Order: sequence, then structure tokens, then C-alpha cells
Amino acid sequence: MIFNATVFVRLKSGYSDPEGETTAKALQGLGYNVTDVRSSKAYEITLEAKSREEAEEAVDEMCRRLLTNPTKDDYRFELREGQ
Amino acid sequence: MIFNATVFVRLKSGYSDPEGETTAKALQGLGYNVTDVRSSKAYEITLEAKSREEAEEAVDEMCRRLLTNPTKDDYRFELREGQ
Repeated sequence: MIFNATVFVRLKSGYSDPEGETTAKALQGLGYNVTDVRSSKAYEITLEAKSREEAEEAVDEMCRRLLTNPTKDDYRFELREGQ
Repeated sequence: MIFNATVFVRLKSGYSDPEGETTAKALQGLGYNVTDVRSSKAYEITLEAKSREEAEEAVDEMCRRLLTNPTKDDYRFELREGQ
């Protein structure tokens, strides 16, 4: 079975996010009622697995082993069956 | 009303995505059954608006005016009522 996973990686809340802050200021400068912007990274991953559970486990492991730095990053992901 | 928008910005499909390709190769090297990875950028935006329609319109405009480059980027966003 083919699965599509979207993984979001962002800085833990204690870390300052200059890109997000600058984007928020720029949007406010353009007149938008924006109170906060957090920038993050996303990966759209296509993978093969025998079951949803296997795919979930694999993606969670990929996040911990390669896609995130556990010291400074938080992550979450969404998984859909796809083609 | 307060809304939370998640905006995804990624390269249009004709553009090569070296970060995604390198990530895919690295994950394959670690033994995962990954067939494709696309890297993208996400912004989590908190904004105030009078209605859902107004919020949607504002976020779409932000994407076109500041967050994306229409020549090379595709974008989509999700909007939730929040605090």
C-alpha cells in the first residue's frame, strides 16, 4: 500500500523564530491583523508499507532519526492512504 | 474572531527540489521504502477577522503579496477557528 505523509517540523516554543517574527512584522506593515507567525518546515513523503500502523511507525522513526533535531524541534505528521 | 491558518508553500512541480531529493536518498539509505519526498515551507499564522470569509480572503492575499513567489511556488492553506 502507498501512503502520503506530511511531516511538520518547527522550533520548540522556547526558541526564537526570527523568520516568523519578521514575516509577522511585514504582514502587519501591509495592514493585516496578524498577531503571530511561526515558520516551519514540511516534508511530503510518499512511502510503501503493509498497513497504516507500519507506515505510522516508519514515519515516526524517520522523524526521530533524520528529519528533526530532538533538542530544538517539535514535529507532528498526518498520514493518508494515497497513490 | 481569532483564526489559525497553516500555509504551505512549495516549488511548482516542474522545479527540481534538491532538498527533497537528498532527503529521499538519505531515507532510502536508512532502509525506508520511500519513493518520493518534496520539501516545503509552512507558516502558522494567527490572525483576527470578522468572519471566516474575511479570514480566508486575507490569508489568500497574504500568500500572493508576501509569502509566495507566483512564478515558482504553489501554495495552499488550511484555516481553523482558534484562540
